[in-house]
Amino acid sequence: MSNPSLLDKITSINSEAPFNRWAGLRVTSAEPGCVELELSWRSDFGQYSGFLHAGMIGALIDTSCGFAAVTTMDWVTASHFSVSCLAPAKGDTFLAKGRIIKGGRKQVFATAELFANADKQSKLVATGQTLLVPLEKAPPVPA
Amino acid sequence: MSNPSLLDKITSINSEAPFNRWAGLRVTSAEPGCVELELSWRSDFGQYSGFLHAGMIGALIDTSCGFAAVTTMDWVTASHFSVSCLAPAKGDTFLAKGRIIKGGRKQVFATAELFANADKQSKLVATGQTLLVPLEKAPPVPA
Amino acid sequence: MSNPSLLDKITSINSEAPFNRWAGLRVTSAEPGCVELELSWRSDFGQYSGFLHAGMIGALIDTSCGFAAVTTMDWVTASHFSVSCLAPAKGDTFLAKGRIIKGGRKQVFATAELFANADKQSKLVATGQTLLVPLEKAPPVPA
Amino acid sequence: MSNPSLLDKITSINSEAPFNRWAGLRVTSAEPGCVELELSWRSDFGQYSGFLHAGMIGALIDTSCGFAAVTTMDWVTASHFSVSCLAPAKGDTFLAKGRIIKGGRKQVFATAELFANADKQSKLVATGQTLLVPLEKAPPVPA
Repeated sequence: MSNPSLLDKITSINSEAPFNRWAGLRVTSAEPGCVELELSWRSDFGQYSGFLHAGMIGALIDTSCGFAAVTTMDWVTASHFSVSCLAPAKGDTFLAKGRIIKGGRKQVFATAELFANADKQSKLVATGQTLLVPLEKAPPVPA
Repeated sequence: MSNPSLLDKITSINSEAPFNRWAGLRVTSAEPGCVELELSWRSDFGQYSGFLHAGMIGALIDTSCGFAAVTTMDWVTASHFSVSCLAPAKGDTFLAKGRIIKGGRKQVFATAELFANADKQSKLVATGQTLLVPLEKAPPVPA
Repeated sequence: MSNPSLLDKITSINSEAPFNRWAGLRVTSAEPGCVELELSWRSDFGQYSGFLHAGMIGALIDTSCGFAAVTTMDWVTASHFSVSCLAPAKGDTFLAKGRIIKGGRKQVFATAELFANADKQSKLVATGQTLLVPLEKAPPVPA
Repeated sequence: MSNPSLLDKITSINSEAPFNRWAGLRVTSAEPGCVELELSWRSDFGQYSGFLHAGMIGALIDTSCGFAAVTTMDWVTASHFSVSCLAPAKGDTFLAKGRIIKGGRKQVFATAELFANADKQSKLVATGQTLLVPLEKAPPVPA
């Protein structure tokens, strides 16, 4: 069961990101160190052959890792992320599960899995890793 | 100077990707093994503090690597990509330069740099690597 | 429980690698898609401050992933691997657990965890991912 | 031309690492932000088919990146590294060139190329990236 106050916190942060709002990204679960995000397919998420674009895959991997980190601290920034594209990402909805592997004062290591759901089946289509750096305060909003 | 027929080819592929059309991504140069892409900043590309979202950074890195590969072959798919976020990605326009490091029959290794342009200055904000697999034919369009 | 014939197969391949013999690397478990390796600490494995050298960490990650792949096929070669160094790698023995995330005809995605054992405690010190390419036959031995 | 005092500094650090001494790794050039390392082939560096073991490739990539970082600061530790294996690593000698892409107070991004030399020819066989964290003081020597 998801933690209500964490879910509120992450949902609120999610709503502050214009890209996430454009995509309609939803935070469906938040516990200490773990977050789940959902995305419903829309045709403007597609790459040239109609699968989910690598940019959207990267967004789901990186965001679920970052949100997993902010369940335990206030501000982070990603310094590196990598994505393994296991299978074509085709589905009606997508579920990203991010979790902290190891947290720390200077760095947070997180990992994520991305599942594509269609026809009542769920398929692992990508995995990824993100290395995050905690920030002491909110980053400045660009002018 | 860019190669006109390659530029036409890559521009045409770019126009087939709904995500790229949504973003307004432009192919500004294409030579054998090298491609340049441009993106003009729009507020819906932003993450929670207003910088370019990691998903957009990943899209630019992965797409410029993939397009560099398709200057020398017809169809590829990315199996792995990684992104180093060197500095906050803030700019009026973004320029991604992708190039093949090593091509082959089974795999293509490509790398990319992402520059943010503002106030007549250009700053390297991210680098990345993509490992691509050549396909024998066009991938099937999802039903 | 480990599979005896797979354990024999992987142990035999391990014994053919001069670096693995030098290191005294032992295959302690082999099942379809999963392998465990053990290494006993020796001072010549150390980096400048006496922890396990990144090269040794990379060797354990890459080898356990590669051996996990060869539980299901005959020949593979790694095309990309990455390592997250979670904590200083200090121990009396090290245990690497590699497993296939997704196998295929053209590519195998594998992941590994590296544990350092000391004082009857086991600590996760590194994780990694390897992308492998199946080969149709044994690679030629260099002249 | 290499910087004599930096070359002395890096050579001294190299000599403190037991693994590097075992391998006979030599620092051949050191300038601010850039380092070159050489390794002469020995059969105990081989993997199962006689090419340079992935662990040795990783050691050369990670070490050249780390040494590039310590041309500009005193102590660093690697938190993540990745290696692209472009071609079988076969040579009489190997040359690793590491350089800083972006340095900072909290993180240093470095990249490296690995060349195999044989028959008076030099071939790029691997590339890699390392993310390093500066340390305020020397890491403790393990008990």
